[in-house]
Amino acid sequence: MATAPSVSYSMTVRLEVPASGTAVSQLTTAVESHGGSVTGLDVTASGHEKLRIDVTIAATSTAHADEIVEQLSNIDGIVLGRVSDRTFLMHLGGKIEMASKHPIRNRDDLSMVYTPGVARVCMAIAENPEDARRLTIKRNTVAVVTDGSAVLGLGNIGPMAAMPVMEGKAALFKRFADIDAWPICLDTQDTDAIVEHVKAIAPGFAGINLEDISAPRCFEIEARLREALDIPVFHDDQHGTAIVVLAALTNALRVVGKSVGDVRVVMSGAGAAGTAILKLLLAAGVKHAVVADIHGVVHAGRDDLKDAAADSPLRWIADNTNPEGVTGTLKQAVVGADVFIGVSAPNVLGGDDVAAMADDAIVFALANPDPEVDPAIARQTAGVVATGRSDFPNQINNVLVFPGVFRGLLDAQSRTVNTEMMLAAATALADVVTEDELNPNYIIPSVFNDKVAGAVAGAVRNAAKAGEAAAGAASTA
Amino acid sequence: MATAPSVSYSMTVRLEVPASGTAVSQLTTAVESHGGSVTGLDVTASGHEKLRIDVTIAATSTAHADEIVEQLSNIDGIVLGRVSDRTFLMHLGGKIEMASKHPIRNRDDLSMVYTPGVARVCMAIAENPEDARRLTIKRNTVAVVTDGSAVLGLGNIGPMAAMPVMEGKAALFKRFADIDAWPICLDTQDTDAIVEHVKAIAPGFAGINLEDISAPRCFEIEARLREALDIPVFHDDQHGTAIVVLAALTNALRVVGKSVGDVRVVMSGAGAAGTAILKLLLAAGVKHAVVADIHGVVHAGRDDLKDAAADSPLRWIADNTNPEGVTGTLKQAVVGADVFIGVSAPNVLGGDDVAAMADDAIVFALANPDPEVDPAIARQTAGVVATGRSDFPNQINNVLVFPGVFRGLLDAQSRTVNTEMMLAAATALADVVTEDELNPNYIIPSVFNDKVAGAVAGAVRNAAKAGEAAAGAASTA
Repeated sequence: MATAPSVSYSMTVRLEVPASGTAVSQLTTAVESHGGSVTGLDVTASGHEKLRIDVTIAATSTAHADEIVEQLSNIDGIVLGRVSDRTFLMHLGGKIEMASKHPIRNRDDLSMVYTPGVARVCMAIAENPEDARRLTIKRNTVAVVTDGSAVLGLGNIGPMAAMPVMEGKAALFKRFADIDAWPICLDTQDTDAIVEHVKAIAPGFAGINLEDISAPRCFEIEARLREALDIPVFHDDQHGTAIVVLAALTNALRVVGKSVGDVRVVMSGAGAAGTAILKLLLAAGVKHAVVADIHGVVHAGRDDLKDAAADSPLRWIADNTNPEGVTGTLKQAVVGADVFIGVSAPNVLGGDDVAAMADDAIVFALANPDPEVDPAIARQTAGVVATGRSDFPNQINNVLVFPGVFRGLLDAQSRTVNTEMMLAAATALADVVTEDELNPNYIIPSVFNDKVAGAVAGAVRNAAKAGEAAAGAASTA
Repeated sequence: MATAPSVSYSMTVRLEVPASGTAVSQLTTAVESHGGSVTGLDVTASGHEKLRIDVTIAATSTAHADEIVEQLSNIDGIVLGRVSDRTFLMHLGGKIEMASKHPIRNRDDLSMVYTPGVARVCMAIAENPEDARRLTIKRNTVAVVTDGSAVLGLGNIGPMAAMPVMEGKAALFKRFADIDAWPICLDTQDTDAIVEHVKAIAPGFAGINLEDISAPRCFEIEARLREALDIPVFHDDQHGTAIVVLAALTNALRVVGKSVGDVRVVMSGAGAAGTAILKLLLAAGVKHAVVADIHGVVHAGRDDLKDAAADSPLRWIADNTNPEGVTGTLKQAVVGADVFIGVSAPNVLGGDDVAAMADDAIVFALANPDPEVDPAIARQTAGVVATGRSDFPNQINNVLVFPGVFRGLLDAQSRTVNTEMMLAAATALADVVTEDELNPNYIIPSVFNDKVAGAVAGAVRNAAKAGEAAAGAASTA
């Protein structure tokens, strides 16, 4: 499948070019004939003899970018200057900062922001701890916590190398939901230690967003933190993904006119995201689900499951899916299926596999950057296709979910996050797409749709308040 | 000693006042005759019959503020509205926030700040961890860490109630040194646990500022973290205070014409600040120091020291001070002393004690808010007097030090902070006061002197670089 040039592989090349002649037109031609695209051309100095030009070029990969630069250096009369990678330039010194909300201009400001005035505010909180949500940043602050064990598709690159992702996440929290998030990259991958560290830092935060922690440790870490803390703990790779998938599936089912309780769903991948998607789909009413992992379809009789611990994630899947007792390979399982959801590996299915699914099949091939099946091929026979990629329609992107979910949780001052809130978030996200807009290429809104975060936040806030009211009623009954 | 009305006890009172008559002048008179001061008077609505006025009033305490409000309500024709506390208003929702350095306007921005572009930056750091200081916020980021065990003069109020101080500190880091600091308030006061938590969060920070952790735990926590981490760890209550005191003492000695190696120094207080001041003074050349705590002068033969562990802080003091073997009370020890430095409790000395010191005595009475001796009385006989208060000359304030120290450490990418750097910081801070400016009421610059942070930062940076060069030379020798 062809990849389009992307600004994420974008660089600016400084060139000296003869003022007359065809060098300038040659360089544009050279970039384009090698599959790049010129996205900017700025003359930064000009003389009778020579021009200095900064050419900004989008490529498809780092190697491709290097190749294009080499082609440019071959053009007669062109002198190659500094090559700047735009993505790296944006990262110099990091992407986020701390800002003070009040100026500190003089002694009066200082005496209110800091000592001695601050002492009275501290005492107010010491006397009434709930005031921390009124008089400190706690109210609007989320910790983005990782151990760097499963960063994007890059694997276990450690906490320091994970920082750019966590900073980016913090920037997105602000951009889409006006939340103040700060990265906490932990120098350990020990489950017990991570639980203890997150518990320890919790007082200054109103929510914990776990990020890029590998399975199965992420399940235990999240469960133990939810038990221990009085603020919501949300592993975005699990639940953010699950909520977007459910929203997209809801709208895809509308498009093909099938119902959630009837469809046969086959999933590929039983990691963090796969397990969370499965659980949310079951909660939403899916009755016929089959999960395959690298060893094939998960069922209770599979060799590696006979000895599995009763609380192992795979055991849970075996006990809660596959009521018909399907066995065999993923390819065998998808024959006749209505829905395929992949959160696994590139190219596990071919076009013939999609063709063998039921009519109006729904294919979510979410492996990144290379999907489980080429979406262009899948679209030839499937009714609806979605991927995790930004260069195809129907992008399943967590950015649609986590800002709104946390906005809702913070606004409700919620102490937990539960399945009801996640179902509400998925419904609200699906409903952003109106009946008039709905079609096979538009089952999920764009990340820049400005209705999304507010809709998700409102649904989560209401679900949290309703849960609180119910709990209050139960405890006084 | 009289306290002046302060903006840190400042409130705005909304009043309805008859449009004619003397009510307006009466209310100003009422505030002033009860010891408050009117710092603002805004008419927010006006009619033929009535005015609505917001009066901003500075008082000396919360009780005083309440008393003034009550006096206002007694004035004929005045109707009292809402009373707003300005300090609390400034704290609503907290004082700091996270800000993104780049706008995220469209897909191109998103693909560079976040996926897929961010993956290349992560891989660059995975391959070369030093790049974290180039491509992430680590370079300019400091954790402000507390357990809430010794907050200001308020004592052990816990991590959540400490938040306003830590936020204020972060705001000051930004204001005076353009450093991004984030508060980490730990939900434990166990020494081992605190050490482990700080080690765990270190990857995302270039420095650790310990804050308001009680003695003696703070000594062990700092020592173990310095041993374990490759970023500088600085307990501001100890070393920030020590550096300002040494700078102030340096200039005070200039004023009275005495030399650091000759003077007899008596200290009151052997807690975190006292111990750090003592160590830095000894490093700076003080030869005759005596320390008193609540049980009197510290000497090796004192009852409670006979059984003290060899590594106890008091034992260290006994072994490294008091070469003349002074015993007895603080009041006995100060007789004939050249320098008194108090970091202990209010009113441990009287005017007669100061009068009994040597000629041209130097008195630093730093207990807050009430000094060890009334500075107005001390000034009657002493040559130079300094306090921690902002309403007397010569305020010993850590804000003069910690921003510049960390700026220097970060700029040098220093992995440690040591005595040489602290001595250099004190000298630089003292030197901000020129010979022409120096006098008994100006031994230390104002916190708003814009030369301070840069001078301190430059000295620390140079000392760090010099230390590195020396270490490099030693290791290749």
